[in-house]
Amino acid sequence: MKIVASIALLFIAAVAYSQSDDSAMIKRISDEILLRGKAHDNLKILCKSVGQRLSGSPGMYKGEEWGLKTLKEAGAEKVYLQECMVPHWVRGAEEEARFKTGNRSAAPAFTVLALGNSVGTGKEGVLAQVIEVKNFDELDRRKEEVKGKIVFFNYPFNKTLLRGAYGDAVRYRGGGASAAAKYGAVAVIVRSVTAAYDDNPHTGALRYNDSFPKIPAVAISTMDAESLSNYLKGKYAIEKFFLKTNCAMLADTIGHNVIGEIRGTEFPDEIITVGGHLDSWDPGEGASDDGTGLVQSIEILRAFNAIGYKPKRTIRVVLFANEENGGRGATKYAEEAKLKNEKHIMAMESDGGSEYPRGFGCGMTKEQYAKVETWKKYFTPYDADKFSFSEGGGGGADIGPLQTLFKTPQFGLNTTGQRYFDMHHSAIDTFENINAQELNLCASVMAAMLYLVDKYGL
Amino acid sequence: MKIVASIALLFIAAVAYSQSDDSAMIKRISDEILLRGKAHDNLKILCKSVGQRLSGSPGMYKGEEWGLKTLKEAGAEKVYLQECMVPHWVRGAEEEARFKTGNRSAAPAFTVLALGNSVGTGKEGVLAQVIEVKNFDELDRRKEEVKGKIVFFNYPFNKTLLRGAYGDAVRYRGGGASAAAKYGAVAVIVRSVTAAYDDNPHTGALRYNDSFPKIPAVAISTMDAESLSNYLKGKYAIEKFFLKTNCAMLADTIGHNVIGEIRGTEFPDEIITVGGHLDSWDPGEGASDDGTGLVQSIEILRAFNAIGYKPKRTIRVVLFANEENGGRGATKYAEEAKLKNEKHIMAMESDGGSEYPRGFGCGMTKEQYAKVETWKKYFTPYDADKFSFSEGGGGGADIGPLQTLFKTPQFGLNTTGQRYFDMHHSAIDTFENINAQELNLCASVMAAMLYLVDKYGL
Repeated sequence: MKIVASIALLFIAAVAYSQSDDSAMIKRISDEILLRGKAHDNLKILCKSVGQRLSGSPGMYKGEEWGLKTLKEAGAEKVYLQECMVPHWVRGAEEEARFKTGNRSAAPAFTVLALGNSVGTGKEGVLAQVIEVKNFDELDRRKEEVKGKIVFFNYPFNKTLLRGAYGDAVRYRGGGASAAAKYGAVAVIVRSVTAAYDDNPHTGALRYNDSFPKIPAVAISTMDAESLSNYLKGKYAIEKFFLKTNCAMLADTIGHNVIGEIRGTEFPDEIITVGGHLDSWDPGEGASDDGTGLVQSIEILRAFNAIGYKPKRTIRVVLFANEENGGRGATKYAEEAKLKNEKHIMAMESDGGSEYPRGFGCGMTKEQYAKVETWKKYFTPYDADKFSFSEGGGGGADIGPLQTLFKTPQFGLNTTGQRYFDMHHSAIDTFENINAQELNLCASVMAAMLYLVDKYGL
Repeated sequence: MKIVASIALLFIAAVAYSQSDDSAMIKRISDEILLRGKAHDNLKILCKSVGQRLSGSPGMYKGEEWGLKTLKEAGAEKVYLQECMVPHWVRGAEEEARFKTGNRSAAPAFTVLALGNSVGTGKEGVLAQVIEVKNFDELDRRKEEVKGKIVFFNYPFNKTLLRGAYGDAVRYRGGGASAAAKYGAVAVIVRSVTAAYDDNPHTGALRYNDSFPKIPAVAISTMDAESLSNYLKGKYAIEKFFLKTNCAMLADTIGHNVIGEIRGTEFPDEIITVGGHLDSWDPGEGASDDGTGLVQSIEILRAFNAIGYKPKRTIRVVLFANEENGGRGATKYAEEAKLKNEKHIMAMESDGGSEYPRGFGCGMTKEQYAKVETWKKYFTPYDADKFSFSEGGGGGADIGPLQTLFKTPQFGLNTTGQRYFDMHHSAIDTFENINAQELNLCASVMAAMLYLVDKYGL
C-alpha cells in the first residue's frame, strides 16, 4: 500500500510538475508576443504598403511577396508558393444607383457596391422599378410582382443574435440574386450585412444558381437601405431606378498559397497547419479580414523561434489564396496534401477578426475534444477558455477541406466578435481599426493551443 | 409518497417555469436595448454637445443639465440634484517641456500634460536636470542624486498583466510626485499609464503626501518617454530641462450628483443604486471614462420603462460628481443615505469602459455571492458569466462608500478591457472610439443583474 501510494504521489507530482511546466511555457510564449510582438507592425505594412488583395488583382501578387518576406523574417525554415488557379473578378469603375426621373439631377443617389462574382449591368445599366421585400418568404409570396423588376432585399442584421447575426443575414447576399432571378427579376439590391448603421456599403461574394439567369447584384449601405425603403413608400414607388455596375468575371488566373514551415524535431511527418487567408475584398485594406489571421499565424512561428522552442511536429503557416470568392487555395492545399499522402494532425484558422479572444470552435472527434477540454485551464488566465465542440465539424473555410479529406481536427479562433461586422468587406476594414493588444492576445492563445497539440498530439 | 412526489414535481416545475420566465424577461430587456437602445445617441450628445466635464469647469454644469434632461427623457419619476463641494483644479494654458540649450530652437520639445491636482510651476517654470528612474526602488537607491532635479518615472505599462497593468503602473502617477519630493526633487515627469505606444499623453490625479513639498507633475506620452530616455543617454544627460505648467488648485466649488429614480412597487424603501461618474478629465470628451457608465445606467431605466417592467424596489440612477480628483460625490451620496437612514440593498457601477462585457466583480458576503452564482446561467448566453468574488470588497470608487457605511453588496461591471487604457484620460477618449453594440451589451447585462436583484433581493 505504501509503495502504491508513493507511486501514485510520484505520478501526481509528475503531472503537477508537467502542468506548471506547460503554464510556464505558455506564459513565456505569450509574454514574448505581448511585449515584443511583431504582428501589429507586420499588419501595418500589409495594409499600408500592399492594401487590398482581391484574387487576380495586382494586390494579390504584392500580398504574396509580402507573405514570403514576412514568413522568412519570422524564421520559417522553408518558405514556398503553392500554385492554384483563382477566379479573377474585377469591379471596374464606380457603381451608379439612383432613381431616374424626368429631372435626373433632382433624383437621389445611393451608395452601393457590386457584390463579388456578380455580372455587370452592361454599359446601358438596368432601368426598372424596385420592389422591396423583407425576406425570402415575402419574395415567394409576391413572386407574381417580381418579373422585370429590381428586387431589394432589406433584411436587417439581427443584433440580438450576437454571433449568429451574420449567418442569418448573409443568405440574402449569397443567394438573393438567383432567388430573385427565378421569378424574372433583372437585378438585386441587398442591404449590407452589418451591425453598423452608416453610409458604408459592404460587399462580399454571391453564388449564382446555374438554373437561373445571372443577374447583377449590389450591396447598399444600411443608411441608404432605410432611405431607399422610405422613398419606395412615397411617390418614388412607381419611378424607375437606374443601376449601373461595371464588374465582370474574367478568365481564371494564377494565384498561390504562401507557406512557411518549421520542421518538427521528433515527428516531422506530422503536420500542424495554422493560417488565415491572403486575399481580401477591394474596398478596404483587408485588415481584419483577414490580415489579422495572417499576422497572428506568422507571429506564432516568430515567437517559437524567439524563445527557442523547437516544435516536435512540423508547423506550417499557410496564407491561403482566394478564400473570399472561390476557396481555391483551401481546396488546393488539401488536394496536394492528399497527393503527397501527408499526415495532417491538426489545423487552426483565424478568420473572425481580431477582437478579444474567447476561445476556440473545435471540430473533431469526442475523444479528441475530451483531451482538448483538459487544457482549458491554460486558457483561463487569458479569459479565452470558451470552447465549443462540433463533432467532425469544420474550423473555418480554409481548413475545412482538410477535415473532409483527412478528418483533421480543427480549431477556429473565436473572439468577442461584435465590432468585426462593422468593417467587414468595406472601406473601413483598415489598420486603424485593429487594436494591438487584442491582436497579440489572439496570437498568444493560438500559440498556446498549437504548443499543446505539438507537445501532446491529439 | 405519491403526494410528496407530486409536490416535488410541482415545485420543480415551478422553479423551471420561474427560470424560463426570468430568461424570457432578461431577453426582453436585452432585445429592447440591443434593438432600440438610446445609449449610443445619448453618449453622442454628451460627448459632442457637452464635452469634457472636469469638476468645477463649465462643462461640469453643462453635464449636470444633460443628466437631468436625459434621466427625465428615460422615464425617471423623480429627478434631482444632490449638492456637494468639489475641488476646482484648472489646467490653464498649454504645458511646455523641452531641453533648454544655448540654441533653444534646436532643443527637442516633448508632449506632456500636467497631472490633475498638481501645483503649477509658476510663470518662470522649472529648470533642472532630469534623472530617469525605472521605479520606486531605483529612486530609493539613487536618492542622493535626486535633490534639485526633475525625476522622470519611466515605468512601462506591463501588458502581460492584462487587467492588472493599470493598478501596477498607476502608482507612479498617484504617488510619484511626493516620493520624489521626499528626496528634494523639484518636479516629476511620469510616463503615461497606457498600453498604447503613441504621442498622446494621459493625465489623471496625483495625491500629495502632506509630509513633503508639493512639486509640479506632468505625464509624458509613451513615445516621448522613450525619446526622452534616449536623449538622457546621450549628450543631453547634462543639459537642463525646462518644464512649465500653468495649472492651479482653486477654492472648492459647488457640484452635484444627478439622480433619477423609479419608486419600487412593493419595497419602495429598499434602494438599488446604479451609476457612473459625470466628471471627466479635460483633454478628451470623457466618452469611455465615464460617459459610457452614465448612458448604460440611464438605459436600464429607459428599457424597464419601455417594456413596462415595474421594479419592486426603488431603482436609483446616480451620475456621481467628482470621481476623478476627489470622490466627493460618492462620499456625499453615502453620507446623505446615512443621514436619511436609507436602506441600500445593492449598488452597481460601470467605470471600466465599454468593451465586451465579461461579467461582474462582486463585493459582498459569501451568502450573498452564493445566491448571485445561481444566476450565472442567465449571463452565459451573453458570454458575460465571469463573476469574481471579494468578500466585503468594493465594486468601484463611487459605490465603495456605501459598502463602508452599510455593507451594501456591490457589483462592478467588468469588460474585456484591453482597449480602455489606450484612450483613458487623454485627448482620444472620444465618442468615435465607442462601439454601439458593445455599449448596449454592457447595458443589457447590467440590466439583467438589476432585474434579478430587484426581483429576488440579495
